[in-house]
Amino acid sequence: MDNFNKGNERIENLNRGGYQIIQNSDAFCFGLDAVLLAWYASQKIKKSSRVIDLGTGTGILPLLICGRTSVQHVEALEIQPEMAEMANRSVFLNHLEDRIQIHCDDLRNPTHTFHSSYYDVVVSNPPYMPVGKGDQNLKKTFAIARHEVSCTLDDIARFAFVHLKDRGKLFMVHKADRLVDILSTLRTHQLEPKRLKMIQPFADQPANLVLIEAIRRGQPRLEIAPPLIVYQRPNCYTEEINQIYGTDKPATSKSL
Amino acid sequence: MDNFNKGNERIENLNRGGYQIIQNSDAFCFGLDAVLLAWYASQKIKKSSRVIDLGTGTGILPLLICGRTSVQHVEALEIQPEMAEMANRSVFLNHLEDRIQIHCDDLRNPTHTFHSSYYDVVVSNPPYMPVGKGDQNLKKTFAIARHEVSCTLDDIARFAFVHLKDRGKLFMVHKADRLVDILSTLRTHQLEPKRLKMIQPFADQPANLVLIEAIRRGQPRLEIAPPLIVYQRPNCYTEEINQIYGTDKPATSKSL
Repeated sequence: MDNFNKGNERIENLNRGGYQIIQNSDAFCFGLDAVLLAWYASQKIKKSSRVIDLGTGTGILPLLICGRTSVQHVEALEIQPEMAEMANRSVFLNHLEDRIQIHCDDLRNPTHTFHSSYYDVVVSNPPYMPVGKGDQNLKKTFAIARHEVSCTLDDIARFAFVHLKDRGKLFMVHKADRLVDILSTLRTHQLEPKRLKMIQPFADQPANLVLIEAIRRGQPRLEIAPPLIVYQRPNCYTEEINQIYGTDKPATSKSL
Repeated sequence: MDNFNKGNERIENLNRGGYQIIQNSDAFCFGLDAVLLAWYASQKIKKSSRVIDLGTGTGILPLLICGRTSVQHVEALEIQPEMAEMANRSVFLNHLEDRIQIHCDDLRNPTHTFHSSYYDVVVSNPPYMPVGKGDQNLKKTFAIARHEVSCTLDDIARFAFVHLKDRGKLFMVHKADRLVDILSTLRTHQLEPKRLKMIQPFADQPANLVLIEAIRRGQPRLEIAPPLIVYQRPNCYTEEINQIYGTDKPATSKSL
């Protein structure tokens, strides 16, 4: 293990396909939102799907998607070299280098050539906060992961539209209170929102997150599924969440 | 009673403030959606609020809102003369002519002068279907009530923006599968969606309706409340729906 993790890092068991992930408490760690998005997107991912994750951080989505599906081709893009490098080490740690390829690149102006109209599925757990809103975390890796410093909704939608095949799908998890921004932006980029699922911390509380599926050049008609409730009482997950986790556990919870 | 209802008409008890409404089975009758919208909007209506209902049909929303609140000033607009006339007779039947005023007019090009920046609250249970979509009902009163023949989302938003005060509220009930159209259109007209509540027929089924509150020139930030479930089992309302109805019963259900 000492070959893979460094300094303040630790290796977390994902227990999904037996995979593990390298996390660093000083940087941004994955949360329930990534686990939910992996579950949501994996329902529509086949062995032959070409998948790309925009803003992968430590690589949690590619790892969980490989654990949940038999997909053979997952790429992931991460702008921060230290995060991309950590994600890459997790790929090697799990011997997934044939299935997952991490690119350290800027989706607004990529140096690598990503083929247009090539991907079946785009996934993204993007920064939730517009720049200047919320407590902007001073530490750079947190700021880039949480705030739209390096990547706005518009950037993601533009990249997804160009690189998805027609009828290709975009899956995203985002803050529920930004739903108007999200739906308007996706439609503007001809990524028609087709399915929503709200995530509520408790049955009697407003949604704090939303899972979204959009289809490139899809017909307008949205299905709003029953919400997913996270806790049945404080510190006790609902049966539905326990089933989604299996034995995966998030290192820390970013937003719930 | 014979002074008020004609031919195929019947008088329905609303049992909300003791009010009654004239309905005609050959025309469009109110449903659960109107009852839910009246309940939703009434939570924010005060005695001094100036309220206007766009596309009132038989006048169900003004009647229920008067039954639920102490509001003194409700106007309502209806394009179809026979419906407006029936709504007017219901107003007289309930001795509400001091509180409710029905205008037979076209909101796209009104002949009556509606003051701009005047209303605190706009309510609307508009036609749900775009023209050319769904089974377009051949009977004219049904077609106008169900399809955007005489009034689109855009028409409603334009009227609401002009006639609401700043920070005034628009309340609407609409089909859940048109949520992208609704949110995009409202934002385009500077009516920022602030609250949503999905209506699901059963706990395990997708939403079929959505209740929306938008604020003229509001800040972007949406709250998505827990959904309202209509039936606990077939033909048996949930406790929450029974409480909303009180003893109101819809004549027929348009959409649930």
